[in-house]
Amino acid sequence: MKTLATLEPLIEKLRDIYHLNSAASLLSWDQETYMPPGGGVARAEHLATLQRLAHDRLVSPDIESLLGRWLDPATGRPLEPEEGAWSEPARALLREVWRDFNRAKRLPSAFVERLGRECSLAQQVWTEARKKSDFALFLPNLRTVVALKREEAEHLGYQDSPYDALLDTYEPGTTAATLRSLFESLRARLVPLLRRVTAAPAPDDTFLYRTYDPARQVEFGKLVLTAMGYDFDRGRLDLSAHPFTTSFHPTDVRITTRVYEKELPACLFGCLHEGGHGLYDQGLDPARYGTPLGDALSLGIHESQSRLWENCVGRSRPFWRAFYPMLRQTFPEPLADVDLERFYAAINRVKPSLIRVEADELTYNLHIMLRFEIERDLIEGRLAVEDLPAAWNEAVREYLGLTPDRDSEGVLQDVHWSLGAIGYFPTYTLGNLYAVQFYEQATRDIPDLEGEIAAGRLTALKTWLNQKIHRWGRTFTADQLARRVTGRALSPEPFLSYLENKYGELYGVPAPVDGRPAGRVADQ
Amino acid sequence: MKTLATLEPLIEKLRDIYHLNSAASLLSWDQETYMPPGGGVARAEHLATLQRLAHDRLVSPDIESLLGRWLDPATGRPLEPEEGAWSEPARALLREVWRDFNRAKRLPSAFVERLGRECSLAQQVWTEARKKSDFALFLPNLRTVVALKREEAEHLGYQDSPYDALLDTYEPGTTAATLRSLFESLRARLVPLLRRVTAAPAPDDTFLYRTYDPARQVEFGKLVLTAMGYDFDRGRLDLSAHPFTTSFHPTDVRITTRVYEKELPACLFGCLHEGGHGLYDQGLDPARYGTPLGDALSLGIHESQSRLWENCVGRSRPFWRAFYPMLRQTFPEPLADVDLERFYAAINRVKPSLIRVEADELTYNLHIMLRFEIERDLIEGRLAVEDLPAAWNEAVREYLGLTPDRDSEGVLQDVHWSLGAIGYFPTYTLGNLYAVQFYEQATRDIPDLEGEIAAGRLTALKTWLNQKIHRWGRTFTADQLARRVTGRALSPEPFLSYLENKYGELYGVPAPVDGRPAGRVADQ
Repeated sequence: MKTLATLEPLIEKLRDIYHLNSAASLLSWDQETYMPPGGGVARAEHLATLQRLAHDRLVSPDIESLLGRWLDPATGRPLEPEEGAWSEPARALLREVWRDFNRAKRLPSAFVERLGRECSLAQQVWTEARKKSDFALFLPNLRTVVALKREEAEHLGYQDSPYDALLDTYEPGTTAATLRSLFESLRARLVPLLRRVTAAPAPDDTFLYRTYDPARQVEFGKLVLTAMGYDFDRGRLDLSAHPFTTSFHPTDVRITTRVYEKELPACLFGCLHEGGHGLYDQGLDPARYGTPLGDALSLGIHESQSRLWENCVGRSRPFWRAFYPMLRQTFPEPLADVDLERFYAAINRVKPSLIRVEADELTYNLHIMLRFEIERDLIEGRLAVEDLPAAWNEAVREYLGLTPDRDSEGVLQDVHWSLGAIGYFPTYTLGNLYAVQFYEQATRDIPDLEGEIAAGRLTALKTWLNQKIHRWGRTFTADQLARRVTGRALSPEPFLSYLENKYGELYGVPAPVDGRPAGRVADQ
Repeated sequence: MKTLATLEPLIEKLRDIYHLNSAASLLSWDQETYMPPGGGVARAEHLATLQRLAHDRLVSPDIESLLGRWLDPATGRPLEPEEGAWSEPARALLREVWRDFNRAKRLPSAFVERLGRECSLAQQVWTEARKKSDFALFLPNLRTVVALKREEAEHLGYQDSPYDALLDTYEPGTTAATLRSLFESLRARLVPLLRRVTAAPAPDDTFLYRTYDPARQVEFGKLVLTAMGYDFDRGRLDLSAHPFTTSFHPTDVRITTRVYEKELPACLFGCLHEGGHGLYDQGLDPARYGTPLGDALSLGIHESQSRLWENCVGRSRPFWRAFYPMLRQTFPEPLADVDLERFYAAINRVKPSLIRVEADELTYNLHIMLRFEIERDLIEGRLAVEDLPAAWNEAVREYLGLTPDRDSEGVLQDVHWSLGAIGYFPTYTLGNLYAVQFYEQATRDIPDLEGEIAAGRLTALKTWLNQKIHRWGRTFTADQLARRVTGRALSPEPFLSYLENKYGELYGVPAPVDGRPAGRVADQ
């Protein structure tokens, strides 16, 4: 049987590429955290060089001819395909290196450079356009980006839809067709649920916007992260304008959060969310660093880890049974008149809003659905770029019952398209669904998980995630992983039941749908 | 005339090398400031890869054949040597690229790797040995390092002494012979001056070791740096165990300091010292970044900038006329009973000590002299590594009148030799001498410089340094620069007169030496 040892010459060649990418990640992290403002122009050049050198090495004849020893270079199929010819990790490593190589090889260097330049320009114009709420200003740049992404899809190749090629960048194997049916299932139950919930009286959450000392907020965030098992010997927490997680190696993971004095949730849920990402990156197998087996699987799986901690754990009653007394001790004044139930209701308040990043668990996926439909239509050529604002506003009315006053609160709100990140949004929803499906399995696998959590002991869950998900990196596809961990493919069902139960109980609006037990509360 | 435009193909090839080196510098900076402890092993690998890729590119056939268009590759002499064939910057650029190429080319990769590995090991053992004050523990590693550095000298080549080849790494063009005569001049006047000063009553400096709030110390350091013209839009100040300066581009310079609650001088003079280095790096020509013309000239010239600000400015009366009232406002309690004169005397207290990094301006170069003599003798084979402690202690007795109790306060105190940095120490003394020679010239060139400083206006000096020194990078050799700026080669005379005047006045011990005006006080 051929094993990883067989592939050592290939692994050897990958090492420099991974080191260059890790260095580039540090440059990006520094750019968002500590870089002085004047350093930006030089930083962009340094980053571009590291990325180009990594890319050149990946598509080098060296790698191509090594892959050719074991694979058909045209299709990526193993020359010895029979079961047992390869160990599981070796077969996975070959499959994933070929994937990276093949994708890189299909994109001409001149195209990649042009895309990079146009996106960098588009991002600057977008910043300006959003500030002025002026879509017309951004239109020419967005047209260019969309045209380039359609060209990218042609380079990459696809079966049914050019959008599939773009999706595959962020979520290997996912297609527009599977997403469409998935979003249809979501819509069918989310929209009525939202209607019932918004008809009920909303809980008070004004006390979340009292004055909370920023330094203490960070301190409390660190307390929660430590309880989660985030290892500060192999990680940091810093502040940045937009929270993010990055990693240079499982022994050096960086998460960031933001802190507002008059908005308790930002730092708190920022820490829980990024902590979930951080645990994934710290949980990758260090012995596999330098190969795809040491990489995170996909954006959707990554997001499942952040959402699991942020929502399934961090917005649950058991969690706050343990942590609310500590939070109240940290902020005795602003929380003096707030008991656990009031707090729990407030952090789970549902309120349709125009802005995705402020959305609650229930409405969040509606934001994603409209973006998915719009970007798919753009790439499939069914929607012209100039018609985007109208299409956007109509979808917002339909799904959320709201009307944006201005494009800065509508079509201009997200940075993604200006960066060329078309096909990225759906991974947020996939993350939400995987999160609940994994968490539900964890409650089955771990004895009295919610009792553990209610006692402030989060390590059983962390260890379960380490064992079941983190340490495998890209050994399995997302579909294989879901089946291995939960016994079935990804399904919207656990997520929908979770929401119906949670909000049914919270808002006193049991689901009228037949067969589903509206009484069960997932987090009790 | 051939100009920089002629050399564009070469400059193009250098760009990636500079970008890799800048990235490596950020990785090193992060390692000393923010990296979590667990990240060290991976970081070393990432750094080694970046350095190897940069090295491979420098010694590539591409660069060699480009240089061959214009130079004799064996000697580095221009094929068109006549005056006027090349513009000054183009000739300088060729000279310096050839220097870098030639030095890199002469060191076999296997040797560089072995040296790196042995030094990394030696540094770990040194840390342990210093802790235990056990020279015998370190002896085998130091033997290996010294043998490798002698081998390095053979690879690099030299005329008179193998030590010259090592010196040339840090201070191009400097030789053991010139250093010997320079140190002899220093010793001839420093040792008697020290004797007179230590015979006089010492000023009280105990108040410097009262309690000073660390956050306020940093705040005051930033105030001083801002006054110096250190640009926080293109630079930062952070904390690290050992203060240092690094730069990724003139628009992104990082300095660090350390803060002790009960030791005012550490943070204060740390900021002044590193601020001087930082101004140099911010003052390099950004248009020349990516070529040697955008690099700092040498370690000696770099140190001249830090010492000029730390000592010539930061330990002078005029400076404290302006800044002492602000310092006292920042620390009203611990400085309540301290007037300007007491403060000035305290920060200039002379006290022979065993530890170099704690040495005052007067004794500092004696520490360097003994290191120079010892390392030269080691490399020239006149001193065996096992005889080092005895040689060290004897020199300390002779120059400083002290006897180390243990090797941790003697021969084991510095990290340099464990790192293979033999030939580095003399640049500290060169920096001290250049500093005074430059500063003296500045007082001639800038109308009423000391009046400006006494009014808290430091920008005239900063601009003079920018114009005269910083912006030229490696366009001139250190010797050329000294002659251009001060009208003469480096001389110990300005430095010695400065010390004799300053300490003669402070300690009431006029120099008995004929002809030198003991009454003039340099900093009034």
